[in-house]
Amino acid sequence: MRVMICGVDGYLGWPLSIYLAKRGHEVGGIDNYMRRAWVGEMGSQSAIPIAKMAERLLAYRENVGRNLRFYKGDLADYNFVLNAYKSFRPEAIVYLGEMPSAPYSMIDVHHAVFTQTNNLIGTLVTLYAMREAVPECQLVKLGTMGEYGTPNVDIPEGFFEIEYRGRKDRMMFPRKAGSWYHQSKVHDTNNVEMACRLWGLCSTDIMQGVVYGTRIDEMGEDTDLKTRFDFDQCFGTAINRFCAQAVIGLPLTPYGKGQQRRGFLPLCDSMQCLTLAIENPPRPGEYRTFNQFEEVYNITELARKIQSVGNKFGLDVEILPLENPRIEQEEHYYNPDHQHLFDLGYKPTHDMERELEIMFRDLIPHRERIESRKEAQFPDIRWDGTRRRSKYL
Amino acid sequence: MRVMICGVDGYLGWPLSIYLAKRGHEVGGIDNYMRRAWVGEMGSQSAIPIAKMAERLLAYRENVGRNLRFYKGDLADYNFVLNAYKSFRPEAIVYLGEMPSAPYSMIDVHHAVFTQTNNLIGTLVTLYAMREAVPECQLVKLGTMGEYGTPNVDIPEGFFEIEYRGRKDRMMFPRKAGSWYHQSKVHDTNNVEMACRLWGLCSTDIMQGVVYGTRIDEMGEDTDLKTRFDFDQCFGTAINRFCAQAVIGLPLTPYGKGQQRRGFLPLCDSMQCLTLAIENPPRPGEYRTFNQFEEVYNITELARKIQSVGNKFGLDVEILPLENPRIEQEEHYYNPDHQHLFDLGYKPTHDMERELEIMFRDLIPHRERIESRKEAQFPDIRWDGTRRRSKYL
Repeated sequence: MRVMICGVDGYLGWPLSIYLAKRGHEVGGIDNYMRRAWVGEMGSQSAIPIAKMAERLLAYRENVGRNLRFYKGDLADYNFVLNAYKSFRPEAIVYLGEMPSAPYSMIDVHHAVFTQTNNLIGTLVTLYAMREAVPECQLVKLGTMGEYGTPNVDIPEGFFEIEYRGRKDRMMFPRKAGSWYHQSKVHDTNNVEMACRLWGLCSTDIMQGVVYGTRIDEMGEDTDLKTRFDFDQCFGTAINRFCAQAVIGLPLTPYGKGQQRRGFLPLCDSMQCLTLAIENPPRPGEYRTFNQFEEVYNITELARKIQSVGNKFGLDVEILPLENPRIEQEEHYYNPDHQHLFDLGYKPTHDMERELEIMFRDLIPHRERIESRKEAQFPDIRWDGTRRRSKYL
Repeated sequence: MRVMICGVDGYLGWPLSIYLAKRGHEVGGIDNYMRRAWVGEMGSQSAIPIAKMAERLLAYRENVGRNLRFYKGDLADYNFVLNAYKSFRPEAIVYLGEMPSAPYSMIDVHHAVFTQTNNLIGTLVTLYAMREAVPECQLVKLGTMGEYGTPNVDIPEGFFEIEYRGRKDRMMFPRKAGSWYHQSKVHDTNNVEMACRLWGLCSTDIMQGVVYGTRIDEMGEDTDLKTRFDFDQCFGTAINRFCAQAVIGLPLTPYGKGQQRRGFLPLCDSMQCLTLAIENPPRPGEYRTFNQFEEVYNITELARKIQSVGNKFGLDVEILPLENPRIEQEEHYYNPDHQHLFDLGYKPTHDMERELEIMFRDLIPHRERIESRKEAQFPDIRWDGTRRRSKYL
């Protein structure tokens, strides 16, 4: 299949381009390197050095044996996106082209507005360009499990049947996001569902859990094929940050009570799941939702796992809870469904420890790169709008 | 109370500024005349001539006996909005400053993007400026009954208690909007609810039905105090368009089967309801939803009422259904709650016929203004993205 990856320069987009090509798909990609700029703005850098796109593309051809058709430009630019879709004629578009950080969106009004407009415009532009150029194409849209928040009931996959005052309907499960970023994904969900309903487009909306990991097997050892690994307060996710902290001897920092429960999955499983969605498209006009994660842990459990793996590498790892810069429920019910991907054949890795060992092996050689940007991992962006570094509890 | 009206130059904002001042409130207003430009873009004009803001402000002082504190500028401009709130120090902000037309939002990708970004940015900017300048102030935010769509179950006021797989929660009632404009209101609803939850702001989110009417009693007869009355395909609502059609001898044009059911209320009731929300604010941190309409009719019933009143004025009024340019359910269940405003003392007008007679009296003298822009009332903006004039059925 011809698969266009929007945001191909990112943490997920780059490995996905390799994974799909090795399965025989023809891959195109769009990016304008915003992620590199945002991480720079946070005073940080990828722990693992990543090549420039020109080098990436050369290494891609050498290792994968085919070209990645790359389009450099802004996903908010309708004419550019339309022309890219007309030229590449994708059968699936994987939309990973959004600003992905909750804290970044909470910095101030300008970052809130940027996050929501950037994400919303990009998605609208892609919906219109699909309708114009490739109306049969599937949109695989990356959302987040965070759209649901932490309700006191089970979380179905997108929709639920309700009975209300004696009448029945199938409705979208109510969302309750906790940051402007997460809200931007809710806005996208609503927009994409409507485009499918009105225009007969089809889409899989992926409510993804937190992804962790430094590599997938398909990347091999060429340093120009590595994907980025962020550890700053905005673009580093919990596990990634904890691993980076362990490597440079900083305490692992669960926020607050550390009982926040989330769904997690390793990078290789994210690739597997996205590919299952791509290769098993919905019907024309269908909008479907996949909850994409492997297992649910609380943040303190995760810290303990990382501590234990770090110890194997001879690292002295402390866990020290940090004042929570976010406003969120620190203890809550959490029981989301995730059956749809299993129905399509998802085989979870089920070996977090092995994955963590790989991460430590990949990160330890770059200890100095992390050390040199370690200030960036201390959270000071607070959900109440102030900017003040969180204290250890 | 000090009440700031965002969008004070608009159809609802202008009469509200008079209504509130006559009740003794101190009124401020923000606008940059976008509504006038949008209607111009549609090749139309207000059927009833409206004065320029400078003239409006003079007439306001003469008739109302106090000044309207007017701030000219863009609601998307954070520094401007922040300074306006700091200077006026509102106790309530009534946010009517959005692009309010579903068809306008469906013209093309540029209008879709403009609608959603304009509405979303304005609301985000106001939330941030409130938090900074007037955190105790109430935000009375204008949403629309169209956020809910037409589900097969009763529509509560914003929230409902659900039992799902044996557990319970109080959740936001799922929205299912049918245009980019309506979706922009859903996005706002989600953003405003979150700002109340995280920051302790308070807001009344008004899911308003379709408003009709040419005046409120408080306006008197000064022509410089008249509010606008639109009849073009984008900015004219169903009843307003039907009345304008009747006045110039065009058939009234329900779309499709004409069985679409909606909630309606006269302009004077909209003023009354908004004022009830303003004068009975929510608790700090509370986000509440009012469904604001008087009665539910289907579109054909409305056309018949207008036909009958038109006949009284000696007008020969035909009803001729038009091919539906929208994609919507033309026959459906519809039973929304609207108890909250009654609990606060809402006294509905309950006399649509009298209201329609006033409208005809106000519109007939401006027959030529409507006639000269009659092309603008034929719908050609279609939900499928094409632009083609609807045929009579």
